[in-house]
Amino acid sequence: MTFAPLQNDTFLRACLGQATDYTPLWLMRQAGRYLPEYRATRAKAGSFMGLATSVDYATEVTLQPLDRYALDAAILFSDILTVPDAMGLGLSFTPGEGPKFARTVRTEADVAALAVPDMDRLRYVFDAVTAIRRALNGRVPLIGFSGSPWTLACYMVEGGGSDDYRHVKTLMYSRPDLMHRLLAINADAVARYLETQIEAGAQAVMVFDSWGGVLADGAFQTFSLAYTRRVLAQLPREHDGQVVPRIVFTKGGGAWLEEMAGLDCDVLGVDWTVNLGQARRRVGGEAGGAGKALQGNLDPAVLLAPPEVIANEAIGVLESFGRPHTDLTRRGSTHIFNLGHGISLHTPPEHVQALVETVHQHSRRMRRVT
Amino acid sequence: MTFAPLQNDTFLRACLGQATDYTPLWLMRQAGRYLPEYRATRAKAGSFMGLATSVDYATEVTLQPLDRYALDAAILFSDILTVPDAMGLGLSFTPGEGPKFARTVRTEADVAALAVPDMDRLRYVFDAVTAIRRALNGRVPLIGFSGSPWTLACYMVEGGGSDDYRHVKTLMYSRPDLMHRLLAINADAVARYLETQIEAGAQAVMVFDSWGGVLADGAFQTFSLAYTRRVLAQLPREHDGQVVPRIVFTKGGGAWLEEMAGLDCDVLGVDWTVNLGQARRRVGGEAGGAGKALQGNLDPAVLLAPPEVIANEAIGVLESFGRPHTDLTRRGSTHIFNLGHGISLHTPPEHVQALVETVHQHSRRMRRVT
Repeated sequence: MTFAPLQNDTFLRACLGQATDYTPLWLMRQAGRYLPEYRATRAKAGSFMGLATSVDYATEVTLQPLDRYALDAAILFSDILTVPDAMGLGLSFTPGEGPKFARTVRTEADVAALAVPDMDRLRYVFDAVTAIRRALNGRVPLIGFSGSPWTLACYMVEGGGSDDYRHVKTLMYSRPDLMHRLLAINADAVARYLETQIEAGAQAVMVFDSWGGVLADGAFQTFSLAYTRRVLAQLPREHDGQVVPRIVFTKGGGAWLEEMAGLDCDVLGVDWTVNLGQARRRVGGEAGGAGKALQGNLDPAVLLAPPEVIANEAIGVLESFGRPHTDLTRRGSTHIFNLGHGISLHTPPEHVQALVETVHQHSRRMRRVT
Repeated sequence: MTFAPLQNDTFLRACLGQATDYTPLWLMRQAGRYLPEYRATRAKAGSFMGLATSVDYATEVTLQPLDRYALDAAILFSDILTVPDAMGLGLSFTPGEGPKFARTVRTEADVAALAVPDMDRLRYVFDAVTAIRRALNGRVPLIGFSGSPWTLACYMVEGGGSDDYRHVKTLMYSRPDLMHRLLAINADAVARYLETQIEAGAQAVMVFDSWGGVLADGAFQTFSLAYTRRVLAQLPREHDGQVVPRIVFTKGGGAWLEEMAGLDCDVLGVDWTVNLGQARRRVGGEAGGAGKALQGNLDPAVLLAPPEVIANEAIGVLESFGRPHTDLTRRGSTHIFNLGHGISLHTPPEHVQALVETVHQHSRRMRRVT
């Protein structure tokens, strides 16, 4: 496959610790329900899975936020639960209730029946990746993604969302052997899934450990971090001669940044409870070249406030990270602006405009200060 | 008022950094739905508020877990939302849906109408404190409690529980002036509430900042921590010649322990994401006497696993804290065993027995090791 040359590599450069003219920006769940054009496509598609499994619709909604805003990356429109669905668990989305699996994984027999799915069952995702990459035509890079092995396990064992993760934690505490088997299968499936996304055209990949933060200290390292590591160990470092940056985001994982810095990835995503300046000192590796870029971390609720508040808070996030390095001759400590979690569906679309402009303008100003 | 002399002061001593023979233990929400005798009383009372507002029933359920287990403290049976209810917001509990307020606080006029409530409207709470203290007859100390000003504000603005705290955060980001006014009223109300609980017989007090952890770094310090500080500044240090220890618990607040260590309190509660040994090094003040005792932090989901797993995990928490100081001549770093959050209603009651025995036995053993 050949694709058009990339016109804006700011995001990829920042992922790899290279100096950029401004701080690149994208938003978790940037293609989504807060956009009226998304809701129109969603209505045409009939259901969320109808949308996610259609190459044309997935391409359409992935590009919608880029047509509105000067974002520096696109992210595949999909759902983290495509992988367990391909394992045969029967995913559906009930409006207002979130995801549901027809079958749960709770017993020895349930785990024994699991296997890394044939990637052909996820062909619709890879076809969407290629179609989106073509449609982007080099405007910005395309990010592929997956849920982390632990986060997928949460949904597979609970059968859907949860308040207390009681079934998955009971399995983990009572039968760690089964949980390890389940997580190993998930890790190998996620690795194949991300590798195939890279082959299909994804220029960076992100692992969403959305529920790593519900684990106790100790359990996080054993049941989440270890399996994210297993995923990363199986991924190609380069594709078509280009390095493919890796981002790992653990919501509620601020306590474990030093341990996450040991992962073979380039970027750590952090939520809004984390002080970015402190995180930079902890894992940014400013002095040497071994640190991680940081991605985040505006509270998504800020986007519900008036534009002048959004501008102030965005500047606060940029200043909290501090001046990014500007030395083109070496790697250093870099920041990718994002929210600390997915954008709220209640966000007025024009508020995102205020955010994008502020981040681009102010981060250019910060680099000019000497 | 005079009460029977205290027979077990292990909890109070540990709160104040004094050496004890073993690590004292109590459980957040220890009187509650996991106990069949609680469910029986709850059925007699007809409703949750019927239970909470009856001195006899509140006394009965507070003592139920103490009759089963060798816990080292009792905690008043009540709800954190009694204070906004006394402000006139109209609290009710719909089974399966959690708390609901008839009126929310979202506008300038709503905030202007708020005031510190007459403590007579909370007389049923103070009467329960006195009745429980009498019924305890000196067995163990009685803990009084309140929600933090920020946590109460979450419920007052949202009108109930929330997934995204979007209304309270929108008010906070858009109208910080109103939010500060609301929080000041809450802080003064909470201070009066806790002070009156102390006068009625509470021997320690705890502030539950259950939702401090949903705030962004920066916002937490401004909108939660500052108002917990305002509460503590108004509380009496002693009552009837006895020091009244203060515990502050912020769920999801592990990142801010150093800042919380600046509070005028004796104990910091931590959830299960926190490494207790690291927390002890950060704020335990082992070297001097200015540190905080730590309370926590077993994952409540552990209690759903078999007793041998519970024993192992409880030992893990004790060992993570490390050997408590044993020098009777000075204050030092102490641990109060608890869960990292409230006990799950799905907990088999006999599992709590396994936990209590393990904590008492193993923590005695740890002190004998030289």
